Amino acid sequence: MTAALTPSTNTAVDLGPAVELVSKEEGHRQPLAPEFVSAEDFSPLEVGYDFGRVRREDIESGPRNIWRYKKLLPVPSNVEEIPNTEPGYTRLVRADNLAKALGVKRLWVKDDTGNPTHSFKDRVVAVALAAAREFGFDTLACPSTGNLANAVAAAAARAGWQSVVLVPSSLEQAKILTTAVYDGALLAVDGNYDDVNRLATELAAEHESWAFVNVNVRPYYSEGSKTLGFEVAEQLGWRLPEQIVVPIASGSQLTKVDKGFKELAQLGLVEDSPYTIFGAQASGCSPVSSAFRNGHDVVQPVKPDTIARSLAIGNPADGPYVLDTVNRTGGAIEDVTDDEVVEGIRLLARTEGIFTETAGGVTVATAKKLIEAGKIDPDAETVLLITGDGLKTLDAVEDKIGPKATVAPSAAAVNEILGG
Amino acid sequence: MTAALTPSTNTAVDLGPAVELVSKEEGHRQPLAPEFVSAEDFSPLEVGYDFGRVRREDIESGPRNIWRYKKLLPVPSNVEEIPNTEPGYTRLVRADNLAKALGVKRLWVKDDTGNPTHSFKDRVVAVALAAAREFGFDTLACPSTGNLANAVAAAAARAGWQSVVLVPSSLEQAKILTTAVYDGALLAVDGNYDDVNRLATELAAEHESWAFVNVNVRPYYSEGSKTLGFEVAEQLGWRLPEQIVVPIASGSQLTKVDKGFKELAQLGLVEDSPYTIFGAQASGCSPVSSAFRNGHDVVQPVKPDTIARSLAIGNPADGPYVLDTVNRTGGAIEDVTDDEVVEGIRLLARTEGIFTETAGGVTVATAKKLIEAGKIDPDAETVLLITGDGLKTLDAVEDKIGPKATVAPSAAAVNEILGG
Repeated sequence: MTAALTPSTNTAVDLGPAVELVSKEEGHRQPLAPEFVSAEDFSPLEVGYDFGRVRREDIESGPRNIWRYKKLLPVPSNVEEIPNTEPGYTRLVRADNLAKALGVKRLWVKDDTGNPTHSFKDRVVAVALAAAREFGFDTLACPSTGNLANAVAAAAARAGWQSVVLVPSSLEQAKILTTAVYDGALLAVDGNYDDVNRLATELAAEHESWAFVNVNVRPYYSEGSKTLGFEVAEQLGWRLPEQIVVPIASGSQLTKVDKGFKELAQLGLVEDSPYTIFGAQASGCSPVSSAFRNGHDVVQPVKPDTIARSLAIGNPADGPYVLDTVNRTGGAIEDVTDDEVVEGIRLLARTEGIFTETAGGVTVATAKKLIEAGKIDPDAETVLLITGDGLKTLDAVEDKIGPKATVAPSAAAVNEILGG
Repeated sequence: MTAALTPSTNTAVDLGPAVELVSKEEGHRQPLAPEFVSAEDFSPLEVGYDFGRVRREDIESGPRNIWRYKKLLPVPSNVEEIPNTEPGYTRLVRADNLAKALGVKRLWVKDDTGNPTHSFKDRVVAVALAAAREFGFDTLACPSTGNLANAVAAAAARAGWQSVVLVPSSLEQAKILTTAVYDGALLAVDGNYDDVNRLATELAAEHESWAFVNVNVRPYYSEGSKTLGFEVAEQLGWRLPEQIVVPIASGSQLTKVDKGFKELAQLGLVEDSPYTIFGAQASGCSPVSSAFRNGHDVVQPVKPDTIARSLAIGNPADGPYVLDTVNRTGGAIEDVTDDEVVEGIRLLARTEGIFTETAGGVTVATAKKLIEAGKIDPDAETVLLITGDGLKTLDAVEDKIGPKATVAPSAAAVNEILGG
């Protein structure tokens, strides 16, 4: 953030308050460009800003989507006027039933299933597309196995862009359909997800007009996750929560929620009150949780094996930064089994009427575990980030739930079952 | 409406501006109660109101969900304070890409996939539950084959109520799962949907504490659809649209959108400008469209056979009132084949990045047909009601769409396919 005080503006593009890229390790600065790794220290590049003055009123008078925070994002100042999927400003639900079930005092669920394609990926993709347009790209692309593919294909359709979405050819039929319907160039790649990812990097280097959201425009893309933090704070009445539980895939989301909170405090939009960030993983892909447990500051890659496929990144790029953030804020990271994930899905549905995908089950189940272990303070307020929709991972619950009973079509039969 | 000028208030319940029930045919009035058919003329009962003065500011300062219109609904004055799913205030999307594809000037999509369980049913169920609570019910119930089951089970879970959901035992696994996850009493009934419906009526008579949303509290339930009309008008900047296309199942939604528009005009919240309402059906279940085509004022029941199952009501209760409304406003009703429904789904996804269920495909395809026939004026503004989510009817598209190609994991292979 301090690097942004003397901006080295790239005048060719209008990305609002964004003025430069800064290397995450050593703070090397370079002009805004579609690049993602520092040539100086090989660390990830992050967006640097010159925010100027931002008031609550500027935000409150904006649209009911992520563009209300455009003065805090690397997007052009007229971003909301260009057709886009308008993600964000999803519900923050006071979850008293779940709080009671978990034995805590005050609990909130940030329900990101309400986004256009029903996951938080709509946020990051919308920011990536807006920045990519400024850089002159005309095709939105990604490697993906699910939520990201949906979000990219939908956002490109709405914007009138081409899309290129690469998925492993073994991907489940339902996930193929929910991307194919947008009619972009969906390609099934003969290979596993690692092969698909390598192919994306190769194609990004070859095709000047293709913006791979999570490769060459990743610094802009990942800033979109800050909006989860912004919204939680605004929806709490302009204050930071005391505790928040965030699922970990690449780890980017967790670090960006933290960045969002810090920016709000630095700009005086909220009081700079202490908060604690907790991380949630599935045991079948828990490299960051393992590192935390063992007190390591680097993350050992693993081979994922979990039903929480949207979190199944075995070598999370932001793992070390997640460890930093969680340790700095006094939090913890835990992981839960696939059975616990399903229980987490069912618990949230049963208590609050919110049906989340496996990633949300990870968050709920991890919160439960951290509460039982005394790591989450039951007397302090807690926010759970629910980042995707249960309709996308029906296979996770299909063998576990069903009708209470099959009955003859008579009131007597129903009364016998229900004891009525 | 005039009947409401001298209210016969039931003082036992607080249903806000609602003061009585009025029979639809002859205007017989009776106190508010959980009843749905007039004992005088055997026509459906509708809610009568004494609105008093309602200002735009009252609405605009309310929550971003249907409760902003609480002064126009049969719900208690503190309705938003009681835990509920908070449906509504979904996006009204300016659809320029689709407009271009259809050859019209100005087109809007009301995207109700953004509701908590991703269909407009969350609206009607929320109103039904709020009214049912006032009448002393403690169990929310319905017969259903899909969206309604999801909405009832979720709303009951969130409210801390019991739910009883009756579905035909032949229902697809996915639709069972998306209701079962909320952990109410989901019962698979050995019989077809007619059997399930009959059973619901039988149970409603037997169980004093069970509110069957679409049976004994139907007058309140159906008022929830007015909010679609309210929101379209408010989101257009407090004015009525010139043309609107509404899908027809029971026909209730179409008549209530009309009622909503009329109430806004009567209260001076919008200018009383003319509007035209069009109805959309699937050819495999098009009793109202057939009656319209043949100039009948009654509707001949049919046996449904269409992929648009959420619209597959063969004997639509509000059919005659739909005919009245469409004729009064100078509109038309059309129906489209299942192939056209799928094309409609794909067209909306491809142009606007919105993935709708089969009912939305019916609306889009019918709009296309009405435009081509010169019945929808291409120079006047049109709104399409998209009432449910494509994730719920994946089977409708599964044989029609897929990857563009399957490729080897090399840039050369991709470039060959995409001509890059």
